[in-house]
Amino acid sequence: MTRDRHCLPLLQAEIDTYSQPVVFMHQDCHVCRAEGFRALTRVRIDCGGRSVIASLNVVTGAGWLGPEAAALSGAAWSALRPGPGDMGQFSHPELPEAASLVRAKVYGERLGQAQFATIIEDAMAHRLSDLDLAAFVTACAGEQLNTCETIALTRAMQAAGRTLDWIGGPVLDKHCVGGLPGNRTTPIVVAIAAAAGLVIPKTSSRAITSPAGTADTMEVMAPVALDIAAMRRVVEAQGGCVVWGGALGLSPADDILIRIERPLDFDSDGQLVASILSKKAAAGSDRVVIDIPVGPTAKVRSAKAAEALSARLRTTARAIGLDLAIFVSDGSQPVGRGIGPALEAMDVLKVLRRTPDAPDDLRERALALAGLLLEMSGKTAGAGRARALLDSGAAEQRFMAICAAQGGFTEPVAAPHRLPMAASRNGVITAIDNRRIARVAKLAGAPQQARAGVLLAARPGTLVQRGHPLFEIWAETPGELAYARDFANAQEEIFRIEEPK
Amino acid sequence: MTRDRHCLPLLQAEIDTYSQPVVFMHQDCHVCRAEGFRALTRVRIDCGGRSVIASLNVVTGAGWLGPEAAALSGAAWSALRPGPGDMGQFSHPELPEAASLVRAKVYGERLGQAQFATIIEDAMAHRLSDLDLAAFVTACAGEQLNTCETIALTRAMQAAGRTLDWIGGPVLDKHCVGGLPGNRTTPIVVAIAAAAGLVIPKTSSRAITSPAGTADTMEVMAPVALDIAAMRRVVEAQGGCVVWGGALGLSPADDILIRIERPLDFDSDGQLVASILSKKAAAGSDRVVIDIPVGPTAKVRSAKAAEALSARLRTTARAIGLDLAIFVSDGSQPVGRGIGPALEAMDVLKVLRRTPDAPDDLRERALALAGLLLEMSGKTAGAGRARALLDSGAAEQRFMAICAAQGGFTEPVAAPHRLPMAASRNGVITAIDNRRIARVAKLAGAPQQARAGVLLAARPGTLVQRGHPLFEIWAETPGELAYARDFANAQEEIFRIEEPK
Repeated sequence: MTRDRHCLPLLQAEIDTYSQPVVFMHQDCHVCRAEGFRALTRVRIDCGGRSVIASLNVVTGAGWLGPEAAALSGAAWSALRPGPGDMGQFSHPELPEAASLVRAKVYGERLGQAQFATIIEDAMAHRLSDLDLAAFVTACAGEQLNTCETIALTRAMQAAGRTLDWIGGPVLDKHCVGGLPGNRTTPIVVAIAAAAGLVIPKTSSRAITSPAGTADTMEVMAPVALDIAAMRRVVEAQGGCVVWGGALGLSPADDILIRIERPLDFDSDGQLVASILSKKAAAGSDRVVIDIPVGPTAKVRSAKAAEALSARLRTTARAIGLDLAIFVSDGSQPVGRGIGPALEAMDVLKVLRRTPDAPDDLRERALALAGLLLEMSGKTAGAGRARALLDSGAAEQRFMAICAAQGGFTEPVAAPHRLPMAASRNGVITAIDNRRIARVAKLAGAPQQARAGVLLAARPGTLVQRGHPLFEIWAETPGELAYARDFANAQEEIFRIEEPK
Repeated sequence: MTRDRHCLPLLQAEIDTYSQPVVFMHQDCHVCRAEGFRALTRVRIDCGGRSVIASLNVVTGAGWLGPEAAALSGAAWSALRPGPGDMGQFSHPELPEAASLVRAKVYGERLGQAQFATIIEDAMAHRLSDLDLAAFVTACAGEQLNTCETIALTRAMQAAGRTLDWIGGPVLDKHCVGGLPGNRTTPIVVAIAAAAGLVIPKTSSRAITSPAGTADTMEVMAPVALDIAAMRRVVEAQGGCVVWGGALGLSPADDILIRIERPLDFDSDGQLVASILSKKAAAGSDRVVIDIPVGPTAKVRSAKAAEALSARLRTTARAIGLDLAIFVSDGSQPVGRGIGPALEAMDVLKVLRRTPDAPDDLRERALALAGLLLEMSGKTAGAGRARALLDSGAAEQRFMAICAAQGGFTEPVAAPHRLPMAASRNGVITAIDNRRIARVAKLAGAPQQARAGVLLAARPGTLVQRGHPLFEIWAETPGELAYARDFANAQEEIFRIEEPK
């Protein structure tokens, strides 16, 4: 073969296409012409023993990229890691084995353990296109994964990343299905469980579509981007931690599937269960409490749906050796008063510090979850002991020690620009729209601006008069404040206010 | 709302992302920051009364695009057509109605006419992402579209573009399902039918993954990129034409679905039938012959599959008022001797000119199809008359007249660089690999280089000795010739040669 005909120097395109590998090549470059590559062709690029399959975008102008080089998106660049002057070798990729397995699933066949493993491996190696992945997600949607397949997918996803192991045990964990604004129980639960002498090495995620993830909230109070060695030191010293899971490589397959599942927004109990439990298993946990908030604007909308999800979680957990307790909770309203990283951190600290204005709902939810975990541990009493550890200040002390071990505690402070939003009529508050109030917090800058967000000033059930404050918007800049305010003013019913009956 | 916060000037990115609208924005631009846009966010852009929904690629470097403007891919640019200095207004798109219909189909619901129409409309307006479209294609794969749904999808696809109408009739058409290299019967069939005094306004496609489409082959002999008015003049004068359908806007929905279906490569009789018949109906045809080649490397691989497809074609055609005849043919081997635009044009001309070396298989296939069409017209005899029109030279004369009417005939000529490839052993040729021989033609430059391709020198059944020529590679440049040769030499069995029994 005249191999030099396939080669081009590689540049960084400095274009972020999320985790999707994209290669930019000029329409006149000899490789495109020789191989017949056109826009969106899947192209295999080899460089220094590594390879990636990327989608081609064809540069047609005379601007930033000429025919003498190819430019890679961030994801393609980090897959190949070319050195200075390294050439990429371009070819048509072979059809990955996973493509025919996805095809089989689309046609209704049942897949086994080895087949899910192949699909996950090929997805991880970027050998499946986004279209292939969308087809896979679609073919698994609804009830199309049975119990055996759910278990197989869970195992395949766990095996795709590393698994932590911990000396001693049991190793505890908690998880909440579906975001309820302000439902930031994790730091409190971890503090109580660790104060009880238990092991709870908690990894959390950052926000993707919400105004704050647990990692964002925790980061207001202490560093969270720890590597595994640092995380291990914290847990060995304090029994628990709250760190960002993204840097640990525990669930790389989940990251890839979630990028496709999220915009499609198909409900699939099978994929949800595999996503949750593969991460818990990878984190080395063996006893896990799952919080399932149920409400009309929550992820799980009915008691029946919660029951079906619970059953599948239990069966799958048993198969992979996890003890599970499920806590079905009220998901109709935001929890606590703050929405946004710093605002939620303030709520967490008030609960731990037992201040008079600590939000009761957040406190009680955290106590219920911690009680279940303590009970499961088999080492201590449950609800009563959890409450005692919180009331005595032992949980607060342990939390401050964890923050110190993670790199040092920082007290959250208020944003410089704040604006109260008032009721436009008299009546009783009957509901708060979870999604719209979250949107206001995001438009104010959360979670990128940690101090931005929304502080709720009234709860459902409250009788209000016109002009009574409902919530306050917090922002870093007057512009962002005005932007969130304009959105809020344009909405009809973030707070539903009705005639008292 | 402070609307100016959402606006940016629009530039052309000069990046071809096929028909996928993409917007490039700098990570520091105020719109990304204010709206929380990240890579691959779906972004709505309004400009001068038009709008498009594009996927966001985020520019991170300091190179070709700064934060003060947004750059559009070709598809996004042509959807908005901004004037000089026009600003784009950026926002989060509403969820299109079609997304929830796709979701319903994914969950196994049956969709009706209005619902398919909404899906096709939203797809056409780029309101569905590629992931949504992949989910739709997946949810329709295999047997998941029933007869009623196939009919509804066909109607929705036809309604999405314009429909031609013709004075007089019947209006004839032909179509071949799935590419067999060299199966270039169309120009011959059109010439015979037009010579019989019938109306056959044929639109054809260019190659997408094959070494030549009918439009590519015809273009070697005459212009094919006619608009509707010019096409109409040709058909009114000569009874028939062979023009490129791509410029006529007859099947815009098909273009969008095919971009997703092709890489996924799911067999779906429902979508295939809707794609074929919606185009025939849009072209104004009312009597159509469909060629279904069956063979191990063809699109349809068994007689049983051909029967199922035929049944669905017949039912759907009846529902939308098309008369149909189906011709199930041998799809095991390439047809004729040439593969590539000019090489196939030479075969076509030899058949029309009745030269001694005209390929028999191409001639007999064209005669069979033309005979069926003549029969269907109800105006003339079938097979015998088709043969008479070819043998008498009437078809040749009509073909030259059609070429002249389309803008003038050009005689195809051989490529300047040619290389014979010889048998590596003694034996009898038992098969030619359709896909690999097509690949050689493409590596030699077909279809972009019209004269490039492969000329077959031996057919299955031939006894050959080592060194006996099997085929010749034709190319425009020595480099392309060498490239195709190297590929061919690296393959084991483009021609299978076995011990004679």
